[in-house]
Amino acid sequence: MTTCTALHLEGMSTLRFALAQIDTCVGDLDGNAEKVLTYTRRAHEGGAGIVAFPEMTLTGYPIEDLALRATFRKAAWDTANELAATLADEGLGDMYVVAGTIGTDHANGKPRNRLVVLHDGVVWAGYDKHFLPNYGVFDEFRIFSSGDRPVVLDIDGVRVGVAICEDIWQDGGPVAALADLGIDVLLTINGSPYEEGKTHTRFELGARRARETGAPMIYINQVGGQDDLVFDGGTFVIDTDGTLLERSPMFVEDLSWFDLDTEAKHQRTTTVADDLDPDAEVYMACVLGLKDYMTKNGFTSVTLGLSGGIDSALVAAMAADAAGGDAVYGISMPSMYSSDGSKDDAADLAANLGAHYDVQPIEPLFDAFQHQLHLEGVSAENLQARIRGVIVMAYSNSKGALALATGNKSELACGYSTIYGDAVGGYAPIKDVFKTKVWALARWRNRAAAGGIGIGGLRVVGNEEGAAGVMPEGGVIIPVNSIEKAPSAELRPGQKDSDSLPAYALLDKVLEAYIEHAHGRADLLADGFDEQTVDTVMRLVDRAEWKRRQYPLGPKVSALAFGRDRRLPVTDAFRE
Amino acid sequence: MTTCTALHLEGMSTLRFALAQIDTCVGDLDGNAEKVLTYTRRAHEGGAGIVAFPEMTLTGYPIEDLALRATFRKAAWDTANELAATLADEGLGDMYVVAGTIGTDHANGKPRNRLVVLHDGVVWAGYDKHFLPNYGVFDEFRIFSSGDRPVVLDIDGVRVGVAICEDIWQDGGPVAALADLGIDVLLTINGSPYEEGKTHTRFELGARRARETGAPMIYINQVGGQDDLVFDGGTFVIDTDGTLLERSPMFVEDLSWFDLDTEAKHQRTTTVADDLDPDAEVYMACVLGLKDYMTKNGFTSVTLGLSGGIDSALVAAMAADAAGGDAVYGISMPSMYSSDGSKDDAADLAANLGAHYDVQPIEPLFDAFQHQLHLEGVSAENLQARIRGVIVMAYSNSKGALALATGNKSELACGYSTIYGDAVGGYAPIKDVFKTKVWALARWRNRAAAGGIGIGGLRVVGNEEGAAGVMPEGGVIIPVNSIEKAPSAELRPGQKDSDSLPAYALLDKVLEAYIEHAHGRADLLADGFDEQTVDTVMRLVDRAEWKRRQYPLGPKVSALAFGRDRRLPVTDAFRE
Repeated sequence: MTTCTALHLEGMSTLRFALAQIDTCVGDLDGNAEKVLTYTRRAHEGGAGIVAFPEMTLTGYPIEDLALRATFRKAAWDTANELAATLADEGLGDMYVVAGTIGTDHANGKPRNRLVVLHDGVVWAGYDKHFLPNYGVFDEFRIFSSGDRPVVLDIDGVRVGVAICEDIWQDGGPVAALADLGIDVLLTINGSPYEEGKTHTRFELGARRARETGAPMIYINQVGGQDDLVFDGGTFVIDTDGTLLERSPMFVEDLSWFDLDTEAKHQRTTTVADDLDPDAEVYMACVLGLKDYMTKNGFTSVTLGLSGGIDSALVAAMAADAAGGDAVYGISMPSMYSSDGSKDDAADLAANLGAHYDVQPIEPLFDAFQHQLHLEGVSAENLQARIRGVIVMAYSNSKGALALATGNKSELACGYSTIYGDAVGGYAPIKDVFKTKVWALARWRNRAAAGGIGIGGLRVVGNEEGAAGVMPEGGVIIPVNSIEKAPSAELRPGQKDSDSLPAYALLDKVLEAYIEHAHGRADLLADGFDEQTVDTVMRLVDRAEWKRRQYPLGPKVSALAFGRDRRLPVTDAFRE
Repeated sequence: MTTCTALHLEGMSTLRFALAQIDTCVGDLDGNAEKVLTYTRRAHEGGAGIVAFPEMTLTGYPIEDLALRATFRKAAWDTANELAATLADEGLGDMYVVAGTIGTDHANGKPRNRLVVLHDGVVWAGYDKHFLPNYGVFDEFRIFSSGDRPVVLDIDGVRVGVAICEDIWQDGGPVAALADLGIDVLLTINGSPYEEGKTHTRFELGARRARETGAPMIYINQVGGQDDLVFDGGTFVIDTDGTLLERSPMFVEDLSWFDLDTEAKHQRTTTVADDLDPDAEVYMACVLGLKDYMTKNGFTSVTLGLSGGIDSALVAAMAADAAGGDAVYGISMPSMYSSDGSKDDAADLAANLGAHYDVQPIEPLFDAFQHQLHLEGVSAENLQARIRGVIVMAYSNSKGALALATGNKSELACGYSTIYGDAVGGYAPIKDVFKTKVWALARWRNRAAAGGIGIGGLRVVGNEEGAAGVMPEGGVIIPVNSIEKAPSAELRPGQKDSDSLPAYALLDKVLEAYIEHAHGRADLLADGFDEQTVDTVMRLVDRAEWKRRQYPLGPKVSALAFGRDRRLPVTDAFRE
């Protein structure tokens, strides 16, 4: 790591950075380039000399195996060149536009995760990501080859060191090299998915890297949902002493500013957004994930079963916040075991949300099947759930609405659901939310409504052009009954979740230790959980994991089957 | 790469290798250890001084994220030690038992893909895999850390160099180091999944490595299905001049022998199995994949819809070959659009196979739904398929039978199937078989039956204790009508696949280029396909891939959700 690239721009004493926290779409080269153009115009109007965008701006992120298509890489490269020319044609050629894209390693033909600078009508300097994360949701080492050159942009004597996401999470590598080279500011572009509690981890990391390089660190993160990931944005600038100099709001697109004065001892703090309530944060992440999933996949409405229970109520509220109550088709599908209270709660919820509401009793359908099949026990319970699945999919097909699965993480982890039944759906908004958190989110949503702040007022969703969101007259969104009653699948008389599962307050703690922290049996006992609970939960989770893996598997007999290389033949929207 | 480990055994002029091509099960430490013990006894009885097993013998392969559980690694290590002690107790302590397992890199706590030698009651030398494949179905770099020491076992002056699978597929690394150190034989243990045409690629590679090291190469591969992979075995020994010295049969467990005489100029050829017919090879791979999926997941029977079409007929024949006709529950589910011919063909097939056969008309159920839903067009077509899905799952639940999805690769690639309808099933035996190949396999299966060789006679499946298989009186398994009639989903009057798809002979060629070879649009046109066909196929495949990805997605809000880390909470059968 010895080379560095220098760019010179004369006549500035301070350098104004515009930080563009935008929502990109994987594969949509034209749409992403258009957004870069729009935000660069605004950055220029605001007096910035440099505008920076998130990781892999032009291609979208995470790109997965789409990166392996040479035709896509060529199209991305053409897009960057055309964008640079367009910027110059519009009189924006003097701006330094820092954006992410994909490159090719000419030594071996492998893709590179690349940062480029568009300036003066052309694609200038390039920096290739060095550390390629290969854990959790990340598969970058599988896809990309690693860059090995640090890059410093010298803009009117201001030395801007650049890095991409994982580069700042690992010690050594490009940040250490930049510290040796000497920089005035560390500019990082990121595609960092949301996790509960991650914000302050990022601040601590940023402060450490700022100290290490002796320069403030700019952290620009993408925002928005992409497939099953949600990016929270939360762009910030942090000084070497740990002072937050700028902090953008989470879960919305944003353009913020940072004026670097290399003469000043300390940078001046501009706007700093507040911390969000932890429940608000998760709620907004779920709503944004759903909203973007709909937008990026061309859906304008959703459909789901409304049982009167808390899970479907919360999902319906999220859907109404994402797309408006009028975009929600709720279906009550009572059986002979559904209580009157459940039916009333479902109807109340739909009214509160302004959602469409149909009643489709399943008893006649159940009788027709049973006339031929004569099922008993769990088979008969599953039959009820699967009839409901068929109805939900019928609404989905005939209305073009996205079917939502309403399962929560606790029941999915324990396999307490019916495959092809209540598990039916193209998107599962609360699949990563434990049951105890489901209750907390429902209460938070009602508090937000009762407080008169609503979701439109909170601007929790949507881009800067505004957001959907419901604000009922009474101030209550989710019926109190749905929150307070004992959970039941209502598939046989008097059934309760607690017949089959430990109490959720306990269950969720065990699940968190077993799933999130990978504690084994001995660890769980050492955590203080009793042996019977531990064995029950482990058995349920292992069996559910096994069942999940069953659908759908088949043998691989060719060089490339479906499944593993899951993104290879994806949307050729770029069509060469 | 400078160290080498030396073991000494006195008093041998030639060394007899036993090559144990066995079928392991991921996570089943006890079962895998028991199998090593059994084969070591037989190796000893046969006069071998050394017996070698496939990659990751004790843990099973591919182990995926199960490797990340420290409790599992500890249990695997304990198993290896106990096995070494048991071998010594049984008087087998003088054998050198070469097996694969999992280790831990003490520098960073990461798992290692390890070869161990059990000898004299203890776990002796260890070699850690150097090259970790990270493409296609492989994720090893994600999971393991890389070994950096070549190992030579010196057994009575015979220098045995060892390597694990990918180590021989990459130039340099351990094989190059072994060539420098000087060895008498290169012993490789492998977990190499089946692909059409891969056998001769392996022979060429083996001959190259034998030349490079100046020593014959032993290639031991695992056999059997594991999740969606099928391992074909096909163990062999190849000399430096490319002569095959030994070749085990494919798709069965096997113990073969190789006598190494370091004085002899050329090794003597022992048993060399013949090439299989290419259609026989794929058929056997599919049957073995299904058979092992059933065995390893505790199923003894299967259920599927029998439409009278070729796909369900072929799948039913495979199932009968895997588990016996009596283990197959076939369900004819005629609608108002099903032809009499289709119903007859389904009944004939079931009779040929000796399968259970029920008729469940869907018209009364369809009418009951339509009384409430009033669906039209594609929604009504999907409803029929989904009613069938509910019936198949009802049989699966009430009989404990594995539901089989009967879709082929061509229709799945084009999205010509109904989610939650005909796509229902825990295993899809022909999901990686193009439609033209489906016809070829059906004709091959009938030829095999007509030739009187049957599947039992061919021993295509099962371990050495024998195989299932059907052999009907008439010599025809799959009704000729099912093979010869024009394919139809029979969901509306007069419907034909060719209404929606290009002719399969053309379609499959385009799909192969687009999916298997990742050709882009310009490449496909250069391949000589016409523009309209190319655009139709690309649109269908892209849309199908998009739909496949939809089910089921949801946001990730915690450090570890389901999905990506898909094996972490899997069967803790090892329970510490």
